[in-house]
Amino acid sequence: MTDLIKMGENAQAARYELQKLGTEEKNNALNAVADALCSRAGELLAANMLDIQAGEAKGMHQGLIDRLRLTESRIQAMAEGLRQIAELPDPIGEVMETFKRPNGLLIEKRRVPLGVIGIIYESRPNVTADAFGLCFKAGNAVILKGGSDALKSNLAISSVIRESLAKSGVTPDAVQLIGDTSRSVTDAFMKLNQYVDVLIPRGGAGLIRTVVENSTIPVIETGTGNCHVYVDKDADLDMAVKIIVNAKTQRIGVCNACESLVVHEAVREAFLPKLAQALRSRNVEMRGDEGIREYLSDCVPATEEDYGREYLDYIISMKTAASLDEAIAHINRYNTRHSECIVTENREAAERFLNEVDAACVYVNASTRFTDGFEFGFGAEIGISTQKLHARGPMGLKELTSYKYAVYGTGQVRG
Amino acid sequence: MTDLIKMGENAQAARYELQKLGTEEKNNALNAVADALCSRAGELLAANMLDIQAGEAKGMHQGLIDRLRLTESRIQAMAEGLRQIAELPDPIGEVMETFKRPNGLLIEKRRVPLGVIGIIYESRPNVTADAFGLCFKAGNAVILKGGSDALKSNLAISSVIRESLAKSGVTPDAVQLIGDTSRSVTDAFMKLNQYVDVLIPRGGAGLIRTVVENSTIPVIETGTGNCHVYVDKDADLDMAVKIIVNAKTQRIGVCNACESLVVHEAVREAFLPKLAQALRSRNVEMRGDEGIREYLSDCVPATEEDYGREYLDYIISMKTAASLDEAIAHINRYNTRHSECIVTENREAAERFLNEVDAACVYVNASTRFTDGFEFGFGAEIGISTQKLHARGPMGLKELTSYKYAVYGTGQVRG
Repeated sequence: MTDLIKMGENAQAARYELQKLGTEEKNNALNAVADALCSRAGELLAANMLDIQAGEAKGMHQGLIDRLRLTESRIQAMAEGLRQIAELPDPIGEVMETFKRPNGLLIEKRRVPLGVIGIIYESRPNVTADAFGLCFKAGNAVILKGGSDALKSNLAISSVIRESLAKSGVTPDAVQLIGDTSRSVTDAFMKLNQYVDVLIPRGGAGLIRTVVENSTIPVIETGTGNCHVYVDKDADLDMAVKIIVNAKTQRIGVCNACESLVVHEAVREAFLPKLAQALRSRNVEMRGDEGIREYLSDCVPATEEDYGREYLDYIISMKTAASLDEAIAHINRYNTRHSECIVTENREAAERFLNEVDAACVYVNASTRFTDGFEFGFGAEIGISTQKLHARGPMGLKELTSYKYAVYGTGQVRG
Repeated sequence: MTDLIKMGENAQAARYELQKLGTEEKNNALNAVADALCSRAGELLAANMLDIQAGEAKGMHQGLIDRLRLTESRIQAMAEGLRQIAELPDPIGEVMETFKRPNGLLIEKRRVPLGVIGIIYESRPNVTADAFGLCFKAGNAVILKGGSDALKSNLAISSVIRESLAKSGVTPDAVQLIGDTSRSVTDAFMKLNQYVDVLIPRGGAGLIRTVVENSTIPVIETGTGNCHVYVDKDADLDMAVKIIVNAKTQRIGVCNACESLVVHEAVREAFLPKLAQALRSRNVEMRGDEGIREYLSDCVPATEEDYGREYLDYIISMKTAASLDEAIAHINRYNTRHSECIVTENREAAERFLNEVDAACVYVNASTRFTDGFEFGFGAEIGISTQKLHARGPMGLKELTSYKYAVYGTGQVRG
């Protein structure tokens, strides 16, 4: 507990230093950290090896071991990520609006850092560098709490960052890593309102739920995506196959992958055999309602539960809709407000879908896989927000800022 | 519990209806509600009388009784508030940004309603109409939970609103009032994440703390203001007196009133006697550190606790600073991120104060009392946000909205 409060105080002191840094100072520091990560790769690999060995000793499965593993090229990629962040425009200092009031007050709305950001994440150690880089460029101090499996790797990475910052003349408390990954410390971290302005969980549904339910600090909820593609009666059916195959199979373990289809009943006969062929050849299991199975003999019956699932696997659920209204209602009932797509050549249907489906990103005739900071042109992202407060969809540097009103007077008082 | 879930479902259904309403439909409905409140004033006064009698019977003190009381003119003011909201520009439908990606995707960032807003408030029944009006104009459904003392008044007001909406052809579930004000229902309401997008507490520090600590729904923290005026060494001292008197005494019970002064040591001799005279004549008790009391014999010693207090009373705390840095550090330590002021003729000091003091609104040479939706030109406000996520400072209609990305493609898939 004492340590957390000390870290909070350090972060608060650091953020006042960070908000005074100019863009060039920040970029130079980011590039220096990138160089340091590369030149000290040996230390990072050695620390990571200890995490890997501990993971193997306790029988961690291969997929998790792989997420945990650092390699020379993954370290290069971390460094490259920081260099790219250095290239991005600095959001701080922007005057967002200026207005003059009848009493002569001049009001400027200025973009400022959020202050202190807390990040709680799971096993991928590269998040340590990525999250630092984005928070730092936006002028924030960050307190990181990674998974216990990656602790030695994370400590090594954060030490390299801190030492490099100090050499650049920047306060090392721009980044602090919580070294105690016990549940009680994590619980206390989620209630550190006095020192932390916002908490961002990065990881699976369980982690996110835990943070939302236990944090008293404002949380930006990121993540889970039960994304749909709706094939309208006026769809280009070949385009629909292409989009669905891409959204489902281009990368299965990601939040913007397609998990569920809605198919207008009028196109089932022409569309479903074509789609099924493409999905079968990629070993995607189909689970559908009766209206779908009428046309697909190898489609498994879908349960109610299927429609609410984020499979992150080679499985897709399928639902028949008698109308656009029915499709929109189904999607609004089951989706996670992430990314949704309509395939249609009908302009009116497209506009209704765009307006009425409640999600961060709504697509007409494009794969849901584009919901991504780089694809949107924002650069690296800290996550995809699925809540509606503050930030929605891909969160880049701007989404790691707040604003303040600067008011210039000449002695005005209120009558 | 069952009732809350039903209300959540109703609100979710309502918000899809509300987001389809045009500006004129919304404005007509608001004006019709305003008319109905006036024409049914008798019913409202009768219901209010029952609340007043119950309050008096249990010995509620006069100040609270006054806040609870409706009168003909207060009902007129509620109605006028709704008519003013009808006059404000509609934030919904605005295209905030448009950008085209190299792959041909056209991305529009569109302003949309938040969805369902929950408001938890205390004894003033006019909040029932105000909160409905702002949420409704921004396209949101609202679920209200008022104080138990005002329940009959709030039920009467919400009934009039609901009946008027129905007559205008608008779903009455645009506003629902929770009729059970027990603690257990309030607790359950604060965890209704499936149905409520954001929770806004309106009231005193205790209410706000309860909501922040217990809600799993994203909260916008509003409220408490420990606001400072700093009198710089280069201040116009007459202006400083005028600003402090206004900020402290023009209305004492409000969050943007000044509660604490910081005075540069170099101006104490010239400034403090002049200020003290003005404050004494308004019966303001002064509590200061040694550096202040050296010049003011009737100034009470300030304790550490004084510097953290929002008095909402005729009391002011006072602190000496040897430099601008010391003043800024003191303010950042004790303030509540609400409204802060520097009085100075020195441009450089002003800019440093504006940049380095962490608050929603930072003033140069003007009273902190201007932190207010009307004074900023936003129109009516739902509150003053003191957090940094989503909205900061006065929250008008725009702050009750979110955005979504509408993405137009021609069959793009991710490579």
